[in-house]
Amino acid sequence: MAAALRAGLIGSGFMGRAHAIAMHSVGPTFGAEYQIECVLLADTSPASAQRAAESLGFARSTGDWRELVADPHIDLVDICTPNHLHAEMALAALIAGKHVYCEKPLALDLAQSIALAEAAERSGVRHAIGFNYICNPMVQVARQIIQAGELGEIVAFHGRYIEDYMGDPRAPYTWRCQRRLAGSGALADLGSHLINMTHFLLGPVARVCGTVKTVHRQRAEPVSGAQRPVENDDMAWALVELASGVGGTFDVSRIATGFKCGLAMQVHGTRGTLTFDQERMNELRLYRADDAEGRRGFRTILAGPEHPDYAAFCPAPGHGLGINDLKVIEIRNVVRAIRTGEQAVPDFAEGLRVQRVMTAIEQSAAQGGWLRVDEVTV
Amino acid sequence: MAAALRAGLIGSGFMGRAHAIAMHSVGPTFGAEYQIECVLLADTSPASAQRAAESLGFARSTGDWRELVADPHIDLVDICTPNHLHAEMALAALIAGKHVYCEKPLALDLAQSIALAEAAERSGVRHAIGFNYICNPMVQVARQIIQAGELGEIVAFHGRYIEDYMGDPRAPYTWRCQRRLAGSGALADLGSHLINMTHFLLGPVARVCGTVKTVHRQRAEPVSGAQRPVENDDMAWALVELASGVGGTFDVSRIATGFKCGLAMQVHGTRGTLTFDQERMNELRLYRADDAEGRRGFRTILAGPEHPDYAAFCPAPGHGLGINDLKVIEIRNVVRAIRTGEQAVPDFAEGLRVQRVMTAIEQSAAQGGWLRVDEVTV
Amino acid sequence: MAAALRAGLIGSGFMGRAHAIAMHSVGPTFGAEYQIECVLLADTSPASAQRAAESLGFARSTGDWRELVADPHIDLVDICTPNHLHAEMALAALIAGKHVYCEKPLALDLAQSIALAEAAERSGVRHAIGFNYICNPMVQVARQIIQAGELGEIVAFHGRYIEDYMGDPRAPYTWRCQRRLAGSGALADLGSHLINMTHFLLGPVARVCGTVKTVHRQRAEPVSGAQRPVENDDMAWALVELASGVGGTFDVSRIATGFKCGLAMQVHGTRGTLTFDQERMNELRLYRADDAEGRRGFRTILAGPEHPDYAAFCPAPGHGLGINDLKVIEIRNVVRAIRTGEQAVPDFAEGLRVQRVMTAIEQSAAQGGWLRVDEVTV
Amino acid sequence: MAAALRAGLIGSGFMGRAHAIAMHSVGPTFGAEYQIECVLLADTSPASAQRAAESLGFARSTGDWRELVADPHIDLVDICTPNHLHAEMALAALIAGKHVYCEKPLALDLAQSIALAEAAERSGVRHAIGFNYICNPMVQVARQIIQAGELGEIVAFHGRYIEDYMGDPRAPYTWRCQRRLAGSGALADLGSHLINMTHFLLGPVARVCGTVKTVHRQRAEPVSGAQRPVENDDMAWALVELASGVGGTFDVSRIATGFKCGLAMQVHGTRGTLTFDQERMNELRLYRADDAEGRRGFRTILAGPEHPDYAAFCPAPGHGLGINDLKVIEIRNVVRAIRTGEQAVPDFAEGLRVQRVMTAIEQSAAQGGWLRVDEVTV
Repeated sequence: MAAALRAGLIGSGFMGRAHAIAMHSVGPTFGAEYQIECVLLADTSPASAQRAAESLGFARSTGDWRELVADPHIDLVDICTPNHLHAEMALAALIAGKHVYCEKPLALDLAQSIALAEAAERSGVRHAIGFNYICNPMVQVARQIIQAGELGEIVAFHGRYIEDYMGDPRAPYTWRCQRRLAGSGALADLGSHLINMTHFLLGPVARVCGTVKTVHRQRAEPVSGAQRPVENDDMAWALVELASGVGGTFDVSRIATGFKCGLAMQVHGTRGTLTFDQERMNELRLYRADDAEGRRGFRTILAGPEHPDYAAFCPAPGHGLGINDLKVIEIRNVVRAIRTGEQAVPDFAEGLRVQRVMTAIEQSAAQGGWLRVDEVTV
Repeated sequence: MAAALRAGLIGSGFMGRAHAIAMHSVGPTFGAEYQIECVLLADTSPASAQRAAESLGFARSTGDWRELVADPHIDLVDICTPNHLHAEMALAALIAGKHVYCEKPLALDLAQSIALAEAAERSGVRHAIGFNYICNPMVQVARQIIQAGELGEIVAFHGRYIEDYMGDPRAPYTWRCQRRLAGSGALADLGSHLINMTHFLLGPVARVCGTVKTVHRQRAEPVSGAQRPVENDDMAWALVELASGVGGTFDVSRIATGFKCGLAMQVHGTRGTLTFDQERMNELRLYRADDAEGRRGFRTILAGPEHPDYAAFCPAPGHGLGINDLKVIEIRNVVRAIRTGEQAVPDFAEGLRVQRVMTAIEQSAAQGGWLRVDEVTV
Repeated sequence: MAAALRAGLIGSGFMGRAHAIAMHSVGPTFGAEYQIECVLLADTSPASAQRAAESLGFARSTGDWRELVADPHIDLVDICTPNHLHAEMALAALIAGKHVYCEKPLALDLAQSIALAEAAERSGVRHAIGFNYICNPMVQVARQIIQAGELGEIVAFHGRYIEDYMGDPRAPYTWRCQRRLAGSGALADLGSHLINMTHFLLGPVARVCGTVKTVHRQRAEPVSGAQRPVENDDMAWALVELASGVGGTFDVSRIATGFKCGLAMQVHGTRGTLTFDQERMNELRLYRADDAEGRRGFRTILAGPEHPDYAAFCPAPGHGLGINDLKVIEIRNVVRAIRTGEQAVPDFAEGLRVQRVMTAIEQSAAQGGWLRVDEVTV
Repeated sequence: MAAALRAGLIGSGFMGRAHAIAMHSVGPTFGAEYQIECVLLADTSPASAQRAAESLGFARSTGDWRELVADPHIDLVDICTPNHLHAEMALAALIAGKHVYCEKPLALDLAQSIALAEAAERSGVRHAIGFNYICNPMVQVARQIIQAGELGEIVAFHGRYIEDYMGDPRAPYTWRCQRRLAGSGALADLGSHLINMTHFLLGPVARVCGTVKTVHRQRAEPVSGAQRPVENDDMAWALVELASGVGGTFDVSRIATGFKCGLAMQVHGTRGTLTFDQERMNELRLYRADDAEGRRGFRTILAGPEHPDYAAFCPAPGHGLGINDLKVIEIRNVVRAIRTGEQAVPDFAEGLRVQRVMTAIEQSAAQGGWLRVDEVTV
C-alpha cells in the first residue's frame, strides 16, 4: 500500500477545523489508499498554531505559512484562510510544486483568479477548490438523473443560496463587508457555491442579467461601535441563460432571515422535476410525469447506500449524512486526483469559471442589462 | 332585511361553475345580508345555457349575453368567459349601469385595460375583478403581519406562480396559445395573480427587468394534429423593484412539471420571514428572529377562526378551507362593496395596474433591461 | 327532472351551519339531480330558529323539532344537535317515515345505538350518519389503492385522531365533559371518526385492548368557576386487531397540544405504505417499494380531478378542497341513496358498529386486557 | 496533556466501521483531551482483522478477541459484534479490568443482562452502551425543553422506531431471525433505542401492555432457499405507563415499508408539544401554546451551535450533522466518563433497564394484559 498522503493545513478556523476532522476520517471511511497524514499546521502565530495542531491532531505546527509551503515532508497544501489570502498562498504552493487544495472563493477578483488558474494549469500539480456541496450524494444523484434524461428535456432551473448571518441590521461590521478582504459579499460567500452547483448539474452559464443590493449600507464596528460603510452586496439576483440555452434564475442573500443553509436547486424538465435543499441535505424531491395517473407526486427520496458515496459512511439507508461528511468526500476526491493524476473536480479552472459568472453578475448589474460571461472585463 | 342581490352569470366553464357554487354559499356562510339571487345565466347557446342554469341553480337562461346585460331584474353582471371577451362584456355592462364582476385578466392588453378602467371609473357602479387568492385567510393574515411590522423592515420578496398544465410538449394547442384570445401566456393566466398578490402584500411595483420564454414554440391542434406556432410565453421571470424600494423577483411558468397551483410568496424582513404556498393554502410559515435563542424556527401556522374570514366557514381551527371557499369570500367582498358603496378590492383599477406590470415585463424583456412600470407604451 | 329533495334541519350550531352551506352547494356542484330544497329549520326557540333560517337560507323555521319531524313537506330530517339528542330525534323521524341523516355519534351508548340501528333497519327509509372525513377524495383514493393491492398484503396500520380543544387545563367545563350529554369523551367525539375511517379503509375491527385516560379530572364551570368532575376520557388508545387479522393501533386525544384536526392514518403493506393527515387534507403520501432502486420515496400526491369527486368542485389539480366540501360530498351520498334506494354509506348500522368498537375500548380498558368487539356487554 | 486513550475494537461490520471512523474524529472534533489511539482491532480471522485494521487505521490486529481483551496496552474495549457475542466479550473485558463500551443490545435476554450489569457494577471500571440516538443535539435539547417545563406538565407521549429492512417477504433469513443469536427481533434491534430515548426524555417505564407480531413467519435461507421459521418479532407495540404516571405508546417494526430510520418521538404537554424524527435528525418541531393568538404553529427548529454539542462540529447553524457524528458525541461521552470517573450515560445499568422493558413487553403480550416492569420474570 502507498504511504499516506502528507498534508499541511493553513488556517484553523471554521473551515480549517472541518478540513482537519475530515482528513482524519477519510482513510477509515474510504479505505487506506485515501489515508492522509496530518503533518503540519500553520496559523497566524506559533502559539495559536501549536494549540490548533494539538487539538486537531497535527504532528507539527508553525506560525509561518511560508514555512509550511516550503516543507519537503508535505505533498498537499490545504488553504483554509480568509478569502484575501487564498491567491498569494495558493500561488506560493504551486510554485513550490505542492498539490494545492484551496477553500472557495479562489481569489478576490477576476484578475487574481485568472492568474491563479493559469499558474495552476502550468504547474503540473493537482489543484482543487472546496465546493463541498456538490459532493453530497443527493446532489450527485441529481446530476445522474439529469444526465440520464430522467427529467426529459430540461426547460428551466431556479437556484438559490440564502442565509441570514447578516440579517440583523445590528450584526457587526466584519472583514466580510470589505472589498479588499472578501471580494464581493453574499455573491462570493454563497453565490460561488450556487454557481458551481449549477455548473455541476447543468453546465456552463452563458449570459446573466443581474442585480446586486446592499440593504444595510453601514454596520457598526464590533469594538468601537463606529459605523462603517459596507462595501459589497447583501443580496445578488440574476436572470440566467446557460450555454445549453436553458434559462434560470439565481437568488443569493446573506440577510434572508430564517434561512441557515438555504442552498436549493429546482430543475424542471419536460418529464419531471427535481428539487434539492441543503437544509434537508439527505433528501431529494423528484416528480415523474410518467408515474401512473392519480399516483403522481413529488417523491422524497432519502439518501441511502444506493446513492453515490453514501455506503462508505453507513450501510443503512435514511440514517443521514452531515455537512462534515461532504468534506470527507471532497478530500477523497482530492486524494484520488493526486493518486491517479487526473484533474480534480472542481479544480482552479472551475474556480475561475465561477469567478467569471460572479463578475458578470456584478458588471451586468452595474450596466443594467444582459451580459455574456465571456465578455466580462478584468 | 334588504332583498337579495340579483346576479346574472355569463359563462359556465371552470370559473362560471365556481362562481355559481359560491353565489349559493355566500348567504348561508356570511349571513343573509350577503345573499345572492341567481337570476339569469348566459352561455354560448340557448341549450347549453338552459342546461347550465338548471345544473347551477339559476332561475332563467339565455343564449345571448347582451340580453343578460340588458335585463332590468339584474343588479350584478358576473363575467366568466374566456379572456378575449372580458372587455366587450364588461364595457356593455358598465354602460347598462350594472355592477360588474369580471374574472381576471381584465382584458387582452394595456389599451383595452385602460379603456375599461376609465369606463369603470366614470360609471359610478361597483366593479370588481376575480383575484381570489388574496381572499385566503392566510394571505390576509400575511398582510396584517407585514403591515404591523412583525417582520421588521421588509428587505426582499420572491414570488412565483408555476403550474404544469402545458408542461407536456404534446399538450395540445388551445386558445391560451393565441395572442388575440388570451393576451400573454403564463404571464396573463398566472402572473396576473402573482402581481396582484404582490400589490396586496407589499404595494405597487415600480420597475421590472423581465424575460419571457416560449419553450415549446409549436403545439399540435387537438383535432387535425397540425402544428401551430405558440404566440405567447410559457414562462416569464423578472427582477422587480417596488415603489417602496424593496427588491424582489417573479417566476411564472405554465410548464413547471409537478406544480399544480404553485402560487408562492416569500417575504423577508429584518426581524422575520413569512412564506406562503397555495398548494398548502391552509398554512402560513412564519419565522420570528425575536423568538428565544435555540427555539427559533419557521412556524407552520394552520388556518383557524382567529384568522380573517375563516370562522364564517368553520369554528374549529385546522379543518381546512378550499379553493371554492376563496370565491365565497371574494363574492362577499363584491356584495359588500355594492351594499356599502365603497370601492371593491380589487377593482378594475387594480386590474389595470396588474396589466401595466405584465406589459412592463414583456416590454422590458423585449428591450433587455430595466423599465419603469409607468413608462410602458400602449 | 325530479323535484328537489326537501330537507328539514334540526340545529344550527357548528354542524348545522356546515350542513346548511353544503345543502345549498350540492346541486350546483354535483348537478340538479342532487338539488336540495331547504324547507324548514328547527332550533331551540322560535326566535333563534327564525334568525338561523334567515341566515342559512331556509324557507321556514320552528322552535319545536317535533313539528319539523311531522311536517309533510319534508323528505329528509337532518339532525345536527348535541349528542344526547340524536337518538330521540332520529327515532321520531324514522317513525314519521322520514329519511334521516344524523351527525355522529349515533347515540350516547351501545343500548341506544342498537335500538336506533334496529329501528332504522325496520323502517325502510334511508338513514345516514355524518362521518364526513371518509368523503375526502384522498381517503377515497386511499381505499382504492388498498383494495387494488397496490400496497401488497397489508401488514399493519396506525390511526390517530388528536386535537387540542381541551388541551388547556383551564379550558372550561362543557356538556362534552358529561357522560349523559356526550357519552364518552375524545373517544365519541374524535375516535368515532377514526374507527369509521378504519372500517372504510381496512374492514371491521375484531378485538381491542384499550386504555382511557382523563388527565384533567376537574374543570371549572364557565360562569361560576366552580370545579366539576370530568366524566369521560381526554385520551383513548388501543391495540387493535382487525377481522382480517391485520394489527394496528388507535390514538385519540382532545388534549394533544398543537394538533387541530389530527386525523391521520398510516397503512403498511408488503409493497407499499400510505399515509394521510387531515391537516393536509389535499395530500396523500404513497411509498411504492416497486419504484426503481435509488428513486424510491414517499410521493406527496396532490388532490386533483383524477381522484374521486374532486372534479365536481374544480377541474384543475392541486387547487384544494376544504372541510365544507367534504360535507357536500356526504350530502350528495345521502341524496343518492334516497334517489336510488340503495343503502347510504355510512348508515346507522355503521354508526352502531363504530359504537361497538368504542364500547369495546372502554370495557377492555376497564378490565385491562383484550376484548372481542362482538363480546361487549350492553 | 494526558496521553490518548488506547482503544481496542472487536468487530468491523456496520457498527465497527462507524466506531472506528468516530474514534479518529473525536479528538479533532472535541479537543485533544478526548483523543483516542486506535491500538488493536480484532475480527473473526487474522486476515480479515488485518485488512480491517489497515483500512480503519488501527495499528495492530488479531483474529482472537481474547487476545485483545488481555492486551495490556489497551484501556478501552469496544464491542461491535453481533448481539449474541456481547455478553461473553463484555464480561471478559470487565474481568480483565478494561473499560467497556458495548453496542446495544446489552445481551440476548434478561438473565444475561442482569449478570452483565451486576458484573459491571462490581467492576469499578467505566461501562457504556451504544445508544447513539440520544446523543443528537436535537434530542438533547428536547430533554432540556421537557425538563425546563417549556411544555408545561407532560400528559402523553408516542414513540416509534420503524424501518423496513425486512419489509419484503422475500428478504432472506438471517441471524436476526434467530432467538439465540439476536434475542428478540425488531424489539431488540430498534425498540431498545426507543426505550432508551423514552428513559432519556421522560424517565423510567413502570408498566406496559404489549403485543408482538411475526407477520412473515418463514423466510428463505439465502443460499439454499430453504424456508426457515422466524423466531422473533417483526413488530412490537405497547401501551405504556411511565413511573411519572404519564401514559404513552410504543410502535416498533422492521417491516414498515418506506421507513428507513423512523425513530420518532412526540411529547405532549399542557403548554406545548414537541416532535422529533430521526429521518430529519437536524430538526425539532416545537409548538408553544403561549405564542400569540393567530401566530401559533409548530416551529421547525434547525440544529445549530446554540444546541448541545453541535458547535464542536460546525459553527454555522442549519448545516447539518449526520449519523456518524452522533457516534462521535457518544465516544466523547465514553472518554469523558473514563477521564472523570463519572458514570457513563447510558451505561450497562441502562442496558439492563431497557432489557427489562423489552422483556415486559414480550411477557405482557404473552399473557394479554398489563405487566409491571419490575415484575418480569427471568
